[in-house]
Amino acid sequence: MSEAFLQRAVALATENVNSGQGGPFAALIVKDGKIVAEGVNRVTSANDATAHAEIEAIRQACRILGNFQLSGCDLYASCEPCPMCLGAIYWARLDRVFYAATAADAAAAGFDDAFICDELRRAPDARRLHITQLSHPDALRPFQVWLSSFSKKPY
Amino acid sequence: MSEAFLQRAVALATENVNSGQGGPFAALIVKDGKIVAEGVNRVTSANDATAHAEIEAIRQACRILGNFQLSGCDLYASCEPCPMCLGAIYWARLDRVFYAATAADAAAAGFDDAFICDELRRAPDARRLHITQLSHPDALRPFQVWLSSFSKKPY
Repeated sequence: MSEAFLQRAVALATENVNSGQGGPFAALIVKDGKIVAEGVNRVTSANDATAHAEIEAIRQACRILGNFQLSGCDLYASCEPCPMCLGAIYWARLDRVFYAATAADAAAAGFDDAFICDELRRAPDARRLHITQLSHPDALRPFQVWLSSFSKKPY
Repeated sequence: MSEAFLQRAVALATENVNSGQGGPFAALIVKDGKIVAEGVNRVTSANDATAHAEIEAIRQACRILGNFQLSGCDLYASCEPCPMCLGAIYWARLDRVFYAATAADAAAAGFDDAFICDELRRAPDARRLHITQLSHPDALRPFQVWLSSFSKKPY
């Protein structure tokens, strides 16, 4: 791990506010000691609820490396990742995550993901989100077709 | 809620395997009884670890509606959303979520997100993921600039 990468993430996050692109967050993907991709929060400028810095950096690194898995890469973030971004970090199989500010620091600035953390810890039927399983006769069909496919690309 | 939307999601998920675009998952965003956007899993074809069906549908709906919030919209998914997609659902402020197959059904087909759910429930220092806060003198600077900005667009 390197102080310079964290410094870069914090500087990009600050710049992102000044440029009006989005919230005060940035993230880098680093491989073999080099920056592969950088992402900043673009939620409001891109009209994209998912355009958090970490998601943007992961998407860009995947594109640049031509791989949907980022094993061997580290993520440096200006702030502790939210649950959505943590989920993406696991799916991308990143090796390590380093961050500067904490979720509590972000909450003090008006970016509070504690509600989402609490919700994810609850059983689906105890959540505030209205989320319902509906029975459907073909519900398992996509999986059956997947399991019997000879051309599938597992991930 | 409507059977037809769930049917459409399940059919798209099945088609997605046959077309080789990605995993057996699809999702729709519905507003005022009409489909606004459709998403399918494109992880392997787009080389994007975040390209789950729900994320793709949310991104497209945000783009089409020109809004980073999807209040007043419902999401129909062929399968129960993973933690990353649930996080995106909260950030997008979707009203309701309906799904056909369960996470257990997906796990039986080789798509197991229980590991991620377990990790998110743990304190950061008890996770298997190597995730570390590093102190940095400017860690709070992005938030300070945000709070004092007159041109910021909150979200």
